[in-house]
Amino acid sequence: MSIQTARRMNQARRSFVREILKAAAKSEVISFAGGLPSNDLIPVAQVANAVQEILATEGAKALQYCTAEGHPALRQWVADQYRAAGLSVSPDQVLIISGSQQGFDLIGKVLLEPGDAIIVEDPTYIAALQSFGLFEPSMLAVPMDQEGIQMDSLRPVIHGAKLLYTMPSFQNPTGISYSAARRAEVTNLLRDTSVVLVEDDPYSLLSFDGRTIPPMASQLPDRTILLGTFSKFLAPGLRLGWICAPMELMEKLTIAKQALDLCSENLGQWVIHRLLSSPDFSSYLQTVRATYARNCRAMRAAVKRHLPDAQCTDPAGGMFVWLTLPPDVSALDLFHTAIEKGVAFVPGQAFFANGGGENTLRLNFTRCGPETIEDGIARLGAAYRSLACY
Amino acid sequence: MSIQTARRMNQARRSFVREILKAAAKSEVISFAGGLPSNDLIPVAQVANAVQEILATEGAKALQYCTAEGHPALRQWVADQYRAAGLSVSPDQVLIISGSQQGFDLIGKVLLEPGDAIIVEDPTYIAALQSFGLFEPSMLAVPMDQEGIQMDSLRPVIHGAKLLYTMPSFQNPTGISYSAARRAEVTNLLRDTSVVLVEDDPYSLLSFDGRTIPPMASQLPDRTILLGTFSKFLAPGLRLGWICAPMELMEKLTIAKQALDLCSENLGQWVIHRLLSSPDFSSYLQTVRATYARNCRAMRAAVKRHLPDAQCTDPAGGMFVWLTLPPDVSALDLFHTAIEKGVAFVPGQAFFANGGGENTLRLNFTRCGPETIEDGIARLGAAYRSLACY
Repeated sequence: MSIQTARRMNQARRSFVREILKAAAKSEVISFAGGLPSNDLIPVAQVANAVQEILATEGAKALQYCTAEGHPALRQWVADQYRAAGLSVSPDQVLIISGSQQGFDLIGKVLLEPGDAIIVEDPTYIAALQSFGLFEPSMLAVPMDQEGIQMDSLRPVIHGAKLLYTMPSFQNPTGISYSAARRAEVTNLLRDTSVVLVEDDPYSLLSFDGRTIPPMASQLPDRTILLGTFSKFLAPGLRLGWICAPMELMEKLTIAKQALDLCSENLGQWVIHRLLSSPDFSSYLQTVRATYARNCRAMRAAVKRHLPDAQCTDPAGGMFVWLTLPPDVSALDLFHTAIEKGVAFVPGQAFFANGGGENTLRLNFTRCGPETIEDGIARLGAAYRSLACY
Repeated sequence: MSIQTARRMNQARRSFVREILKAAAKSEVISFAGGLPSNDLIPVAQVANAVQEILATEGAKALQYCTAEGHPALRQWVADQYRAAGLSVSPDQVLIISGSQQGFDLIGKVLLEPGDAIIVEDPTYIAALQSFGLFEPSMLAVPMDQEGIQMDSLRPVIHGAKLLYTMPSFQNPTGISYSAARRAEVTNLLRDTSVVLVEDDPYSLLSFDGRTIPPMASQLPDRTILLGTFSKFLAPGLRLGWICAPMELMEKLTIAKQALDLCSENLGQWVIHRLLSSPDFSSYLQTVRATYARNCRAMRAAVKRHLPDAQCTDPAGGMFVWLTLPPDVSALDLFHTAIEKGVAFVPGQAFFANGGGENTLRLNFTRCGPETIEDGIARLGAAYRSLACY
């Protein structure tokens, strides 16, 4: 007799991206599929030194449980970052969590009832759909243009929604950033509603020119939940990020965090705080930004050369460009041909909550340097041309 | 306007134990309250060395994302442990998770609908109640005796229940272990039902005499979910444990894990595997067992001397003894007096799902050595006597 599972799992599927990453893991495949930082930039030696110093001075304390809220100095760092960016928050509004991904679950636990409406960008981050999806909401996908979510499509659906999930800076998957005007339009619209804004911001420290844009939260502080992560600019494997929320939600978010895993990894919190406090951190960050800016330029130039039919976004930071192929081209067909030619990407349709985007694809530019990017995009161009021959 | 939160959070409270741990954190207080391993036993130098060696050989790879399923060698180690204990499982049935606590959430996601009945031991592990509670089940608490859950109370409620949550070895909070006969009675009873057995086993490696008891899962392999952890015998701050389930549940458990946090901490998985593979591991584990056995003896002897009115359990492993005071004594009153005298414990009533246990308390014996135990229990005895004077 098989075990009866819960209804919320009926629609749940394995992450498409993760399955693709497995296909792309063969050593001969150039992968533009993942969303990983460059191995060359992960500060391995600095982590090794930090661990030595922390264990020498703190001893077993750094290997015991932490509080559910997280390492106080790290919460303070997050609050300080926001203050510098124009948003006044207290460290008490920050919880350290196991990657910003865990924030979706905490938000779902604290806010979502089955059937609640969530508005998402179309396309949007797949794993947010997956995580929110387990709370059985209805998903409303609102199209994007080059300045962010389309207001004409957002206005008719905003009332009655529970959450608006947005990634206003260097969005995953498109690389698009909201203009200042669009940010204001969205927060103005939300002000007259009860909708909670979820501002997911994994990439703003990966701004190519180092300029930071004030978070949308600064215009709607009482109703915005911010998510951030150390994965994209330091090391994903430490699995640490944060959630920053209005004070009235902190008690319940903390309870949900306690119930989920008691606390996040302790030693890693000490390590990250040490790296952030190092005098070398700002030059490290500049190197990361310059490297990714260079890679992005190389990728856009290579796309122009080898895939002249494709439209390519022009991100000012983050990890991805987004390609739109002619309407009759299937990115999924292209994917299969491309894998044979030794290059991988993520077909765009996976990022659309309610279908569409068959002729789109996401390319990551942080994992490979310019030469490999040139080689990989040349292979992609060859795959595209061979597809056109059928 | 305040933000409307979800119904599941209405009953959720901050962990009582965690609040008590804060009260007990003052340096002058001897704390028997937590469930932490001894600082002196956490293998700090070995962790430091392991990190150096792993980062020197694996480099950035150990700081990138891991698969959702976890480090293959660690999954293999878990499967090998079970095989040695008499349960044949494949590494494919093991997921590495962020402490066994996270397993409650994954089980809840995959199996529980609101209103489903969960049977728990009375008393039981508080944080399991907290985590399962967010899935809005009905909790049925079945009393314990010295051999485990009471069959006469279990039989009338077993049909129609969704889960039986049990900790058959060195239970938290009582230290009681199920007898072999009781294990068989429980699994025989469950065999004719559709109830899923959740066998939570954080402590079996902390058996004082090193003997391992075959998991109950070996008698009901198709319907048992096992939870285990590296927190209690290595280092809690690495936040790593595992869930081992029937093959038919693995796909959905993996999806739920992906949605929750993508994967568990990567570097820590490499570290733990290295510690487990070290030729010193078995002598390390023997030292841990001998130390805790000695502490437990010291605590029971001190209780006999300083609190002759109390009944004390006689655990063969784990981290806790359980005291039952005369029926008219309030352990909560004792707690407040004891804190003034400089000693902390957890009043037992927190461990009862539906109330009761006002005259019981839990004492941890892993955190302090025999001299501190003697001092702390003497203080507790003084607190008890001063309470009796009112």
